Amino acid sequence: MDKVTVLFFPDNLVANVEPGTSVLRAATLAGVELKSNCGGDGTCGRCLVKVKDGNVRLKSTGAVSQKAKQAGMVLACQTMVEGNVVIDVPKDSRLDEHQVLLDEKEVLVEQDEGLAEGYAIKPVCRKVKLSLTEPTLTENVSDWNRLQAALRSELDCGEIHIALPVLRELAETLRAGDWDVTVTVAQLNGCAEVVHLEPGHSDRKSFGLAVDIGTTTVVVYLIDLDSGLTLGKKGTYNKQARYGDDVITRMIHASDKKGGLQDLHKAVIDTINQLIDEVLEQSQASGDDVHMAMVAGNSTMTHLFLGLTPKYIRLEPYIPLAAETPPVRAEELGLNINPTAFVATFASVASYVGGDIVSGTLVTNMAQSDEITLFIDIGTNGEMVLGNRDWLMTAACSAGPAFEGGGITFGMRAMKGAIEYVEIDADTYEVKVSTIGKMKPMGICGSGLIDCLAKLREVGLIDRAGKIQTDLDTPRIRQGDDGWEFVLVFGEETECNKDIIITENDIKNLLRAKGAVYAGIRSMLKAVQLDEEVIEKVLIAGGFGNFINIRDAISIGLLPDLPPEKYRFIGNSSVKGARLSLLSQDAYHEAQELGKKMTYLELSVGNDFMDEFMSALFIPHTDMTLFPSVTNLK
Amino acid sequence: MDKVTVLFFPDNLVANVEPGTSVLRAATLAGVELKSNCGGDGTCGRCLVKVKDGNVRLKSTGAVSQKAKQAGMVLACQTMVEGNVVIDVPKDSRLDEHQVLLDEKEVLVEQDEGLAEGYAIKPVCRKVKLSLTEPTLTENVSDWNRLQAALRSELDCGEIHIALPVLRELAETLRAGDWDVTVTVAQLNGCAEVVHLEPGHSDRKSFGLAVDIGTTTVVVYLIDLDSGLTLGKKGTYNKQARYGDDVITRMIHASDKKGGLQDLHKAVIDTINQLIDEVLEQSQASGDDVHMAMVAGNSTMTHLFLGLTPKYIRLEPYIPLAAETPPVRAEELGLNINPTAFVATFASVASYVGGDIVSGTLVTNMAQSDEITLFIDIGTNGEMVLGNRDWLMTAACSAGPAFEGGGITFGMRAMKGAIEYVEIDADTYEVKVSTIGKMKPMGICGSGLIDCLAKLREVGLIDRAGKIQTDLDTPRIRQGDDGWEFVLVFGEETECNKDIIITENDIKNLLRAKGAVYAGIRSMLKAVQLDEEVIEKVLIAGGFGNFINIRDAISIGLLPDLPPEKYRFIGNSSVKGARLSLLSQDAYHEAQELGKKMTYLELSVGNDFMDEFMSALFIPHTDMTLFPSVTNLK
Ligand code: FES
Ligand SMILES: [Mg+2]
Ligand SMILES: [Mg+2]
Repeated sequence: MDKVTVLFFPDNLVANVEPGTSVLRAATLAGVELKSNCGGDGTCGRCLVKVKDGNVRLKSTGAVSQKAKQAGMVLACQTMVEGNVVIDVPKDSRLDEHQVLLDEKEVLVEQDEGLAEGYAIKPVCRKVKLSLTEPTLTENVSDWNRLQAALRSELDCGEIHIALPVLRELAETLRAGDWDVTVTVAQLNGCAEVVHLEPGHSDRKSFGLAVDIGTTTVVVYLIDLDSGLTLGKKGTYNKQARYGDDVITRMIHASDKKGGLQDLHKAVIDTINQLIDEVLEQSQASGDDVHMAMVAGNSTMTHLFLGLTPKYIRLEPYIPLAAETPPVRAEELGLNINPTAFVATFASVASYVGGDIVSGTLVTNMAQSDEITLFIDIGTNGEMVLGNRDWLMTAACSAGPAFEGGGITFGMRAMKGAIEYVEIDADTYEVKVSTIGKMKPMGICGSGLIDCLAKLREVGLIDRAGKIQTDLDTPRIRQGDDGWEFVLVFGEETECNKDIIITENDIKNLLRAKGAVYAGIRSMLKAVQLDEEVIEKVLIAGGFGNFINIRDAISIGLLPDLPPEKYRFIGNSSVKGARLSLLSQDAYHEAQELGKKMTYLELSVGNDFMDEFMSALFIPHTDMTLFPSVTNLK
Repeated sequence: MDKVTVLFFPDNLVANVEPGTSVLRAATLAGVELKSNCGGDGTCGRCLVKVKDGNVRLKSTGAVSQKAKQAGMVLACQTMVEGNVVIDVPKDSRLDEHQVLLDEKEVLVEQDEGLAEGYAIKPVCRKVKLSLTEPTLTENVSDWNRLQAALRSELDCGEIHIALPVLRELAETLRAGDWDVTVTVAQLNGCAEVVHLEPGHSDRKSFGLAVDIGTTTVVVYLIDLDSGLTLGKKGTYNKQARYGDDVITRMIHASDKKGGLQDLHKAVIDTINQLIDEVLEQSQASGDDVHMAMVAGNSTMTHLFLGLTPKYIRLEPYIPLAAETPPVRAEELGLNINPTAFVATFASVASYVGGDIVSGTLVTNMAQSDEITLFIDIGTNGEMVLGNRDWLMTAACSAGPAFEGGGITFGMRAMKGAIEYVEIDADTYEVKVSTIGKMKPMGICGSGLIDCLAKLREVGLIDRAGKIQTDLDTPRIRQGDDGWEFVLVFGEETECNKDIIITENDIKNLLRAKGAVYAGIRSMLKAVQLDEEVIEKVLIAGGFGNFINIRDAISIGLLPDLPPEKYRFIGNSSVKGARLSLLSQDAYHEAQELGKKMTYLELSVGNDFMDEFMSALFIPHTDMTLFPSVTNLK
C-alpha cells in the first residue's frame, strides 16, 4: 500500500506511514512527543490532538471529556490515518522539552564534589602507564603475555581479560609507543578487563559515566576518572514515557506487544545517548575517551536497559530475570561512547528494590553508622531502607504516580508552569499560587500537590478523609464532570485557558499515595519492633523529594512526625552512588555487599501493611497520637 | 568512472570492476580461483591467462616463458582491464576444485574412532539437563541466580559466565520448559560459560567442530558431542592461497597491504564456512546445533583466523601478538554456526611452533610414554617435537613449499593428475609414472618428488650433489630455459600437452627442503646430546607425510636412517588433537600443559643448525656413516 503523509502543526514535522497507522505512532516517528500514560490504549486521555485536514478513522472515542470533544479533539492513539492528514498538537498534549528542572536545581543544592566519607579515589576504571621491556630473541614471550605480566605487577588482580577488538590493537600499539603503553583497565570483583590501549604514556583524559535510569527521568554525569571531578550533568525525561507513564504499563508493553521489549530498550538507550551527546558537548569531550559507565536503575529499568524482559517481575511471584547482571561492552547496547567501554550495573535486592536503591544506600553511608537511619526514595514507587551498621531492612510500596503528576486531573511533572506553592486565605478561601519559572500556571506538580493538600486541610476546605466541604461559601467549590472539585486558578489566569481544579478523586489518589509511603515506613518499624522515635535521621532522595516542604509532608501524614532537623534531602542519591562507585573500587564492592546485607520486607504479602495503609488514608492519620505536632486544624 | 565487465571462460563467471583493475583481482571477485604464489607480484608466473577479447594494459611481462608468450598467454596479475574483456582461463592456471584428496584417503587410513589412550569422553562443551525448583513468593531469587545455583551443583566450576544474547533468552526458556531446562555449557580452564539454552529436557543433538587451519589446506570435522562420533569430515584449500602460497607472503600481505589483514582473515573464515556448510549438509545437521569449535593452526594461521596481525611473527625477534588467545564467540568471527557458540584455540609454543603442533603432540601421547618419540609434521614448514614423559623439545625449520609443489617447475599439490610414483629403468632411463586418480599427468606432488629424487639418484641420473649427469645417453636429458633438465613425461602423454620436466634448480630446492628437515632433527638431538638410535618411534603427521615412501625418504636423507618399523604415519594430527580436546576436558587441559612443558629450540639463532644444513645438502648426506642402509648407489 502507498504510504501517506502526516504533517504535525505547529512543528511542521512529517511522518510517512502506512494507512491505518495511529496518529500517536506517526507522532513518535515524526519526533513529536505526545503525552501518553496508558501506552496507547485510549484510557489515559492525554494524547489529545485535532485533525485539521484529511481522512481519519476513529477506533474509539476513548477517554475524552465533553469539553474536549466539543473543541474537536480526538485521542491520537485511537485515530488512524486513512490518507494524507494535517494534525494540530495543542501544548497540553506535549511532553515538555527535554529539560529537567529538577536537575538544574539539584546542581545548586549539591555542594560537595568530594567522595563520601571513608572512600579514597581509586576508580574502577583507570589508565595504567606501563614501560615494557622490549622483546629479544631469547626473551620472546608474546605481546599479550608481556602486557599481562606487567599489568599484574601493577594491579592486584586475578584473571586479566581482553575483548577481541582491543586485543587486535595490541601489537601496533606497543610498538608505536616503543614499548611504553597506556592501558585502560576496568576492575570489578577481582577480575581485570583491558578496555583500551594507547601507545606511549598518554595524558589523554579518561572519562566515566554515572547514570541513573529513573522511570520518569534519566540523569547522566560525566566524570573525570583521574581527578574525580564531575565535568557535566544532564537530565531528561525517559523516552520510554511514550509507552506509558508508569513501570507497570511499560512492563506490559514490553511483555505483551510484539517488539515491545525492543521499543523500550531502544527508548532508554536513545535517552541516554542524547544525554551523553549533550554532556560531552558541554564538556568538549569525546565519546571515545569514555571507557566506563556505571548504571543504576530500578530492576525494571535495568532489565530494559540491557534488553532483558521484565515480564516476570510483574507477575506473581515477581521474579527478575537477573538480580546481578554481568558487565557488558558499550557496543552491545549501542551506547555513544567508546565501543569497548565497560558497562556495569548495580545488583538489585528484590524485584521492586533495585540497583538505584543500593546505589543510594551506599551514598547515605548509613551502613557505616551506629545511628538508625531511614532512607526514602519517593518517585513513582516509594522505596525505603531502614537500619544502621548492624542491620538493614528494605521495602517498596507502590505510591502510584500521583506525586509525579499522574492520575491527577491537572497533575504534571515539575517543569515550567507547574504550580509548586499554594496559599489559601483561611477566611475568603482566595488562592495564591506560584509556579516554576514564574509562568502562567499550567498544572500542579508533586510538591505543589502536597502543599495544596496541606493547605486545603489547614483552612478546613476538606475534612480528615479528604472530602470537600461543599457547604462552604465560595464559588471555587463546585460540581464538575467528576464530582465535587475545588478551583485553584480560574481559566483567565492560566496558560491553558482552562480552570485548574483539584477534584475529590484527585485528593483520594493523593491520600492513597501518601498513605502507602507512611504505611511502608510503619510496617518496617513494626517488623523490627521499633518506634519512630528511634530514627535519628531521615534522608529523602529522588527528584521529587528535593522540593517538598517537610512540615506540609508531615501535616498530611506522608512522613513521620519527627523534628524537621532530623530530615535531610540528598537529591538524586542513585546517580551519586553510581559516581561514587565509579571512583572507588571499595565503594563498588561495598555496594555489592550492601545488596546482599539488606533484608527485604515484602509489603504485599502480610496483612500488616494493609491495616497500616487503611489507617493512613486520613489526614494525617486515623491515629492522631502518631502526629502530636499536627493539631491545630479547623 | 564507469565499471567494466570481465567475463571468464569457460566458467562464464563475471566481475564488474573499475578500469585499471588487474585480471587476477577480477578473477577473485568473480569466484574464479587462479594460482598465484607470489601474491600478484608477477614473479611466480602461475596466473597465466589469455585475453580473448577487449582492451587491456600490461604492467609488465613478468615471469612468462617464451612458449607461453607465443601461445598468447599473459600474467593475470600484470594485466589491467581497460574496457569490457573476455578472459580464457587454462586448466593449468587454476587452483583445483575444492576437494582435498588427502582427506579422502585419510579417512581410509584412520581406523580408530575412539579417544586416545587414557582419556574418557567428557566434552568441553555439553548439555546439562536441569530441573529447577519453581520460584515462590518466599523463594524468589532471580532466574539467573537460580540457574547458576543449579549448574553449580552439577558442575565442578568456578565463575559462571553468560553473554548478553543468551541471558536475554533465559526468562522465557525457563518458563516454556516449566522449570526444566537444558543448558549448553562450555568449560575451559575452570570457568564455565553458558552458551545456549533450551526449554525442557531437550534431546536435540549438540555438535562441535574440530578445525585444523593449515597454510595449504583446512580441515573441519563435525563431532557429535554426546557420542563422540565424527559425523563428517571435509577439507579444502585455504582460500588465503590467492594472497600467496607460503606463510611469509601472506604475512607480508597482511602487514603491508591496505586491508590485507582483513583479506586474509576473511579468506580463512570463508574457507571454514564453506567446509562447515558442506559438513553440515553431509550430516543433515543444523549450524544452530553447533555450540563449540576447537581450532588448531600454526601461530600465523591462528592470528589470521582471529584477525590479529601476524606482522611481528615475521620480523626479528619474531614475537606473536598472543601465544594464548582468549576464547571468542562465533558471531565475533562470522562463523556459520550458532552465533553464541564458543570458539577456542590452542596456545602456541613459539612463533613457528603453533597450536597445531601442540594439538598434534597431544594425539601422539608421547608425553605419557617412557619411549623417546620424534614427532614430525611436514608441511610448508617442518615442525618437530622430540622427547618423552620427562622432557619435550620442539623446533621448526622452514622447509619451504617444495614438498607441497611450490618452487618446483611442475610441482603441484597432491590432487588428481599429480604424479605420485616414478619408476626409472636403470639401463634405458625410460620412465613410468603413476598419478593420483589414474589421469594423464599434470605435474608432480610432494611424495612424487621424493620418489623421483630417490630414483634419479638410484639409477645415477644425478650425482650426490643433485647435478644431472649430462653425459648420459638419453633424449630425456637436455638444456632448457632454466639450465639442465630431465623429462619425466613427454607432452604427447600429458594433460597439459607440455613436457613434464624436473630441472637442476628444482632438485636444488628439494635438497634444501629435505636438508632443512634433517638438519632440524640433528640439531635437536645435538641439543639433548643423544644419538638417533635412542629414538624409538617416529610419528609423521601432515597431509603430505601420509603418502611418502619411507625408504625413499631415508635414501634421499630427508628422514634419519632408522628401521622402517619405527616409523608410523598419523595423518592430520592437528585436527585429531582438536577433536580429542573437544571431547575431553582433561585432554584440553593436558594440551595447555604440553605447550608450557615444551622447550623451544630456535634453529635460526645458533650456528649448529647452519652447519647441519650445509652437510645435509647432499644425497643422502655428506657424512655417509649416518646412512648405513643407503649404500648401493651407482
Ligand atoms: S489515551 Fe491515547 S495514549 Fe492514553
Ligand atoms: Mg530514582
Ligand atoms: Mg598442518
